[in-house]
Amino acid sequence: MAKLVLVRHGESQWNLENRFTGWVDVDITEKGAAEARSAGERLKAAGYTFDVAYTSVLKRAIRTLWHVQDAMDLMWIPVKINWRLNERHYGALSGLNKAETAAQHGDEQVRIWRRSYDVRPPALEAGDSRDVFGNPRYAGASRAEVPLTECLKDTVERVLPYWESDIAPSLREGKNVLIAAHGNSLRALVKYLENVSDADIMGVEIPNGAPLIYDFDENMKPTRIGYLA
Amino acid sequence: MAKLVLVRHGESQWNLENRFTGWVDVDITEKGAAEARSAGERLKAAGYTFDVAYTSVLKRAIRTLWHVQDAMDLMWIPVKINWRLNERHYGALSGLNKAETAAQHGDEQVRIWRRSYDVRPPALEAGDSRDVFGNPRYAGASRAEVPLTECLKDTVERVLPYWESDIAPSLREGKNVLIAAHGNSLRALVKYLENVSDADIMGVEIPNGAPLIYDFDENMKPTRIGYLA
Repeated sequence: MAKLVLVRHGESQWNLENRFTGWVDVDITEKGAAEARSAGERLKAAGYTFDVAYTSVLKRAIRTLWHVQDAMDLMWIPVKINWRLNERHYGALSGLNKAETAAQHGDEQVRIWRRSYDVRPPALEAGDSRDVFGNPRYAGASRAEVPLTECLKDTVERVLPYWESDIAPSLREGKNVLIAAHGNSLRALVKYLENVSDADIMGVEIPNGAPLIYDFDENMKPTRIGYLA
Repeated sequence: MAKLVLVRHGESQWNLENRFTGWVDVDITEKGAAEARSAGERLKAAGYTFDVAYTSVLKRAIRTLWHVQDAMDLMWIPVKINWRLNERHYGALSGLNKAETAAQHGDEQVRIWRRSYDVRPPALEAGDSRDVFGNPRYAGASRAEVPLTECLKDTVERVLPYWESDIAPSLREGKNVLIAAHGNSLRALVKYLENVSDADIMGVEIPNGAPLIYDFDENMKPTRIGYLA
């Protein structure tokens, strides 16, 4: 039976600074690196191994994956990188401090932006330097695919095609799959795998560096095993 | 015009200890890591960028690549990993100290093993723990493909099919290609690209962490630009 393990990146510099991050390419902290290495060491000690890994184009996820691979002596496995596993795009909030944003817009408005399923934060305006369209790492993505803001519903809708086209086929082949990604792109997968409602998914918190494990039977029915002890 | 850059891994622990390494999975030293980061910083400063990278299944090459990618802010590019880019297999000499081997077998014999094009060192015997056949990282390779010893001619003959099937097509598409690999797998490519004779190729030394640059025209004719200053 194939296994799927989801790992959210270790603490990032902007997790630490309490800033909205989204598609801004912020690195992990020393603490985040230690979280990632620990995840790898514990997965190895528990007997897990992987045939293939998937990650986003953002370095906080890639570096987390590298630490896990290094700790598991799996630097040699194939790694597939795709922007569809990126964090939810936070629009014009990207880079802003969460507390300052709440002081400016009110706690309730920020709660809606952060916790509703289908309300988008204000979009980036034309010419905003935070718009990554045209960046070489998004060369394969159209203007419609590179967002200017996203609600979680949008994130789910661009993650799932990649699940169907690339990740699920690997599991169907019996491969053990590791995904190193982000709070909201992993929420998208958890929502799909566990059939979580739109209302409930925002209450699902995935901690930094805590491996979440699923078993798949031959009918591709997932069973949540839970977080690695 | 597409560019190809070859980087030999940074100093490994067994480079430092003067031991034959081959397919043993020895890591790089701190000095080796610094060489790799420096290579990346200098490539970036000189305006190079890459669309795809190739490396072996051995961590001294992979970690070198990771340092180069990190220094260039290119962690997100696709990386293709293949055992055909591994170091020459050193057979029963793998792990032995070069000076002790010379004391035992004579300088002339060791010179022949190290410097002839088509003389193999003694092969690993059946059951030798250094035989990696069956290791998951060689799951795609047959018994005939996982060597028990190699001369450089053997290395050339297993590197070139991968050049033809995977690397050359990327260059033909106009992609800039980075290869992080080993002294002898890179010699195999240099021999092919520059049409170096069997007699002369062993005199070609590729230093650790020194990027060697080629230009390709639209007819896939390579021009050696030389080592990055």
